[in-house]
Amino acid sequence: MDDLQQLSNGVDTIWVVLTAAMILLMEGGFALLEAGFVRQKNAVSIIMKVFVDIVFGALVFYFIGFALMYGKDWGGWIGTSGFLLNGDLSHINLTISHETFWFFQCAFVIAVISIVSGAVAERINFRAYILFTIAMTGLIYPIAGHWVWAANGWLGKLGMVDFAGSAVIHSLGGFAALAAAWMIGPRIGKFAQDGTANIVPPSNLPLASVGAFILWFGWFGFNAGSTLSATHAGIGHIAVTTMLSAAAGGATCILFTMFRYRKADPPMAINGSLAGLVGITAGCAFVSDLAAIVIGSVCGVAMVLATEFLESRQIDDPVGAFPVHGVSGSIGTIAVGLFALPDSVREGTAGLFYGGGFKLLSVQLLGLVVICTWGFALTWIVLKLIKPIVPLRVSRDEELVGLDVGIHGVPAYSQEEGFLDLSHWKQHK
Amino acid sequence: MDDLQQLSNGVDTIWVVLTAAMILLMEGGFALLEAGFVRQKNAVSIIMKVFVDIVFGALVFYFIGFALMYGKDWGGWIGTSGFLLNGDLSHINLTISHETFWFFQCAFVIAVISIVSGAVAERINFRAYILFTIAMTGLIYPIAGHWVWAANGWLGKLGMVDFAGSAVIHSLGGFAALAAAWMIGPRIGKFAQDGTANIVPPSNLPLASVGAFILWFGWFGFNAGSTLSATHAGIGHIAVTTMLSAAAGGATCILFTMFRYRKADPPMAINGSLAGLVGITAGCAFVSDLAAIVIGSVCGVAMVLATEFLESRQIDDPVGAFPVHGVSGSIGTIAVGLFALPDSVREGTAGLFYGGGFKLLSVQLLGLVVICTWGFALTWIVLKLIKPIVPLRVSRDEELVGLDVGIHGVPAYSQEEGFLDLSHWKQHK
Amino acid sequence: MDDLQQLSNGVDTIWVVLTAAMILLMEGGFALLEAGFVRQKNAVSIIMKVFVDIVFGALVFYFIGFALMYGKDWGGWIGTSGFLLNGDLSHINLTISHETFWFFQCAFVIAVISIVSGAVAERINFRAYILFTIAMTGLIYPIAGHWVWAANGWLGKLGMVDFAGSAVIHSLGGFAALAAAWMIGPRIGKFAQDGTANIVPPSNLPLASVGAFILWFGWFGFNAGSTLSATHAGIGHIAVTTMLSAAAGGATCILFTMFRYRKADPPMAINGSLAGLVGITAGCAFVSDLAAIVIGSVCGVAMVLATEFLESRQIDDPVGAFPVHGVSGSIGTIAVGLFALPDSVREGTAGLFYGGGFKLLSVQLLGLVVICTWGFALTWIVLKLIKPIVPLRVSRDEELVGLDVGIHGVPAYSQEEGFLDLSHWKQHK
Repeated sequence: MDDLQQLSNGVDTIWVVLTAAMILLMEGGFALLEAGFVRQKNAVSIIMKVFVDIVFGALVFYFIGFALMYGKDWGGWIGTSGFLLNGDLSHINLTISHETFWFFQCAFVIAVISIVSGAVAERINFRAYILFTIAMTGLIYPIAGHWVWAANGWLGKLGMVDFAGSAVIHSLGGFAALAAAWMIGPRIGKFAQDGTANIVPPSNLPLASVGAFILWFGWFGFNAGSTLSATHAGIGHIAVTTMLSAAAGGATCILFTMFRYRKADPPMAINGSLAGLVGITAGCAFVSDLAAIVIGSVCGVAMVLATEFLESRQIDDPVGAFPVHGVSGSIGTIAVGLFALPDSVREGTAGLFYGGGFKLLSVQLLGLVVICTWGFALTWIVLKLIKPIVPLRVSRDEELVGLDVGIHGVPAYSQEEGFLDLSHWKQHK
Repeated sequence: MDDLQQLSNGVDTIWVVLTAAMILLMEGGFALLEAGFVRQKNAVSIIMKVFVDIVFGALVFYFIGFALMYGKDWGGWIGTSGFLLNGDLSHINLTISHETFWFFQCAFVIAVISIVSGAVAERINFRAYILFTIAMTGLIYPIAGHWVWAANGWLGKLGMVDFAGSAVIHSLGGFAALAAAWMIGPRIGKFAQDGTANIVPPSNLPLASVGAFILWFGWFGFNAGSTLSATHAGIGHIAVTTMLSAAAGGATCILFTMFRYRKADPPMAINGSLAGLVGITAGCAFVSDLAAIVIGSVCGVAMVLATEFLESRQIDDPVGAFPVHGVSGSIGTIAVGLFALPDSVREGTAGLFYGGGFKLLSVQLLGLVVICTWGFALTWIVLKLIKPIVPLRVSRDEELVGLDVGIHGVPAYSQEEGFLDLSHWKQHK
Repeated sequence: MDDLQQLSNGVDTIWVVLTAAMILLMEGGFALLEAGFVRQKNAVSIIMKVFVDIVFGALVFYFIGFALMYGKDWGGWIGTSGFLLNGDLSHINLTISHETFWFFQCAFVIAVISIVSGAVAERINFRAYILFTIAMTGLIYPIAGHWVWAANGWLGKLGMVDFAGSAVIHSLGGFAALAAAWMIGPRIGKFAQDGTANIVPPSNLPLASVGAFILWFGWFGFNAGSTLSATHAGIGHIAVTTMLSAAAGGATCILFTMFRYRKADPPMAINGSLAGLVGITAGCAFVSDLAAIVIGSVCGVAMVLATEFLESRQIDDPVGAFPVHGVSGSIGTIAVGLFALPDSVREGTAGLFYGGGFKLLSVQLLGLVVICTWGFALTWIVLKLIKPIVPLRVSRDEELVGLDVGIHGVPAYSQEEGFLDLSHWKQHK
């Protein structure tokens, strides 16, 4: 390897490591966003789930998930090598090392499971959540990911594209979140007897907002880093489409809620920006700036409507995981079939609006349906399998007192000025 | 283009994209800083303004602002091409793409408008703020920026330099903030009848502090990223001067307030570090390490005195936007004329203290006066124009109850344990 | 210098500047973590200490510390040039400039002193803390660092290795923290008369958690950035071992506390991940992935046990600085002697488990003992010297009312809706 090649590989490596670190920081964003949106009595418990996402997710993906996703292909369905990063991975032929590649992919898998954590907030049993995390990061996501992103995955071979994961990450995560929220059922008191949704103000909107800003920051790592190469000609364009779509999603939601609710709604502004980010994730490298603005705007409005729809169906998704990730991810996946610029996806291919006909659009739709169904169904099945082992839901008492004190033995916030004298209690232990 | 050039361009691209992302994360810093400094009842409303900064700012800068700032020059006064990044931009001749350049500049414009958001906190009408944001990011800042930073801008041609924007970003933003705070008037109760300033403790100092740390982090992107090239020889030096000036600003304020108020004042420590960062922004590439320490120290003390001065003049700037950005930005701009090392700005030029005479100093002063006047006057005019369309200020009732509940219908913090039953309310709707 | 070399140096520079900025962001992480763990009445005061760490730390390290650490060697004991970055530094022969190198090292020294800040929380006198910070960043750490990391440091010449500072940063900081916590004594009410430890719930666990996520993010800068070169072949491996060890530390603590306390303990999950990060810091470039998992797991369990041990000894370390940094740092330093892969540290050397015998292990042990002793003893001595100048501890009244109001005159959180009318007070001033 000559000096130039060595330097080039080094540059690709630091690019991928830095962007992967940015994606991992998104966990801090998820934690803030979710802790801010839920009730105060459950703020710690949701953050503990984010911890589970990272610590169990990373380990399971190291031992199993990565191999199933990117190992030696078996019939387009599943990978079969690379457990513990061992075995034959020679088909992964990148300028970065397999370890660097794993690190980036690890940041992705943790994002997927974090999507689900919000939908089951305030009521899921902690041990059940650990088991589900293992299934999601070791099985559900890696297999679906293999279909689209591995060298010989069947959906990828059909021509489906998903640059940074509107479908593979967000639709999958969003539909898994929907299945989980549905099966576990709404929080006590969320719906009145007549079916109307009761509300609770978010416990800490400043935290939630900053969570969104951190997620936004991480998204540049997510989308631009997915090039896996610093000399990829599209990096600047990806940054611009990502920025514009997010801005359009947020601006649309601010204006739309000013019209619809007669007030600029803060949680909707937050989720609107995130919806724009989710929506552009598949197409950031393929669509024009203006298309990015359209995609972001549509995702913003759709997110508001989907939130209302879920409430009307009495499905309780406390942080809006499905509207943000499931709905916008699906819109973004389809949008590639509509807006892909000629030759951007591959030579001779374009979206419907650019003369490419229905070819790309139909394969995007097919892939989307497959992935959403897979995410929903497998989540349903896995939770059904977990149920006999540990209850899916905390007890009524634990839910009423809150999971922080009920399960983790500590409140999120305390104004205690002194110390709790435990000496008496210890004598009787 | 040969391989080495391609790699070099790729490296410049990732450098600019990463630093731009760091600058955008500063919005999270602004949000935290401002939400922490204002009263709790207005914490959400200030964050919503930061959202407006980003989402409207990015879109307006894409459609209009960038063209006026960096488009084909017309007489040194204004750019005329590049709307929607279209048209002739061949005069922008960089190693990075026009889109990458736009992305970095977009991060800058958002920072400018965010400076103003703090000064009008707790009382500005939300719709008026949106309109002002459009004017600032589409018109006021781009035109002033053109004068200094565009290839043929008249101030730049005269010899004015401002490496990363002490004048263009911070003085402009700071004087716009001053005009806005002045015109809108103080918050109800801020000044007693005898004119003395009443105080309110910041609602959340830990959040504000962390906002400062995030801003500090982003500033390395701001200053070092302004090289726009990874092979710029000054990157290490810029990082060091930025660090030392910030440290000097913070240390000085801690010691100065220990002396002046007999306590190390936390908000002043926060703003002192920020003042040091603002002050070094113009000269980070041009001045010595020791000069950076002097600049930071002077900015720190000046910020404290300016804060007291504003209060004595009964101008209400809730987060100290003018003392931090307007005053320190001006000091930093002048400091280049004093401390610029020989040949650092350009061949044969130096600051007053290095034998360069008054040449550089006078052009820095001229440019500073022009930019501050422009920022102040245009803001005044634009707000005068907005006033007949929508009121500049919320109603007295909204201000007393707080903008969070009054305008956005939701409190920043909620300790609600259950749900608010809305079924009764819905029946009567 | 040819073009390729120039580009390569530029890449190394941006790599080091970006990772250094990430490390500096860790101060935001420390601030959140510590403000979240302590009682609400002391949240501002702990953050003010973090400000002291940065602003005084950076200046002192610029004027003195760097020279003692990396200046021209004198007998393997101390550096003697490079005060204010002046003088002969030609022995530092890197692809990055001396200033870039200083910037990275400055981020390190600030991390060291921040470790101590947590252990003395809620009771140390602010002025005493400033004096101690000056001693730590100007003297204690630079000299110990010289022994291991400078070109001719005596421990480094003996063969001790510490890739990114398990010993030099964390054990040193942790043992200094232990000495300081011990000398200053426990908080009022922390231990009951019978010696049992009383507890207080952390004031803000969401903040503390997000602090951990930010620290985690910064750690990738810490460990991978310590290569100081983008073409270092180990960057990907370092990212993976860092990730796996942190995950193992967190996962182990979640499971261990579920078993030991019958609840997944949030503060322990937080500190467990940090323990895993501390533990891998020395060996991240030298050990296998599986060894990283083992190291992280051991550090997690040891951290829990060390926390219990400290309490049983009536030593009050409010945020667990010693268990996290002192204990895990020591384990990590020793682990290199056990797990170092053949030829990873240097040609012909390996850890005990890879056939290298006791050679590497014994020098690691020696170096560890020296550094821990140095950190503990010098801290003790310096505090003894400070004591006659200013009291080490706040008054009883200040401690009871809290340091925020007692020392800094402002509470961390305020729900004040209006303004405090000070006009009456001013009349009588």
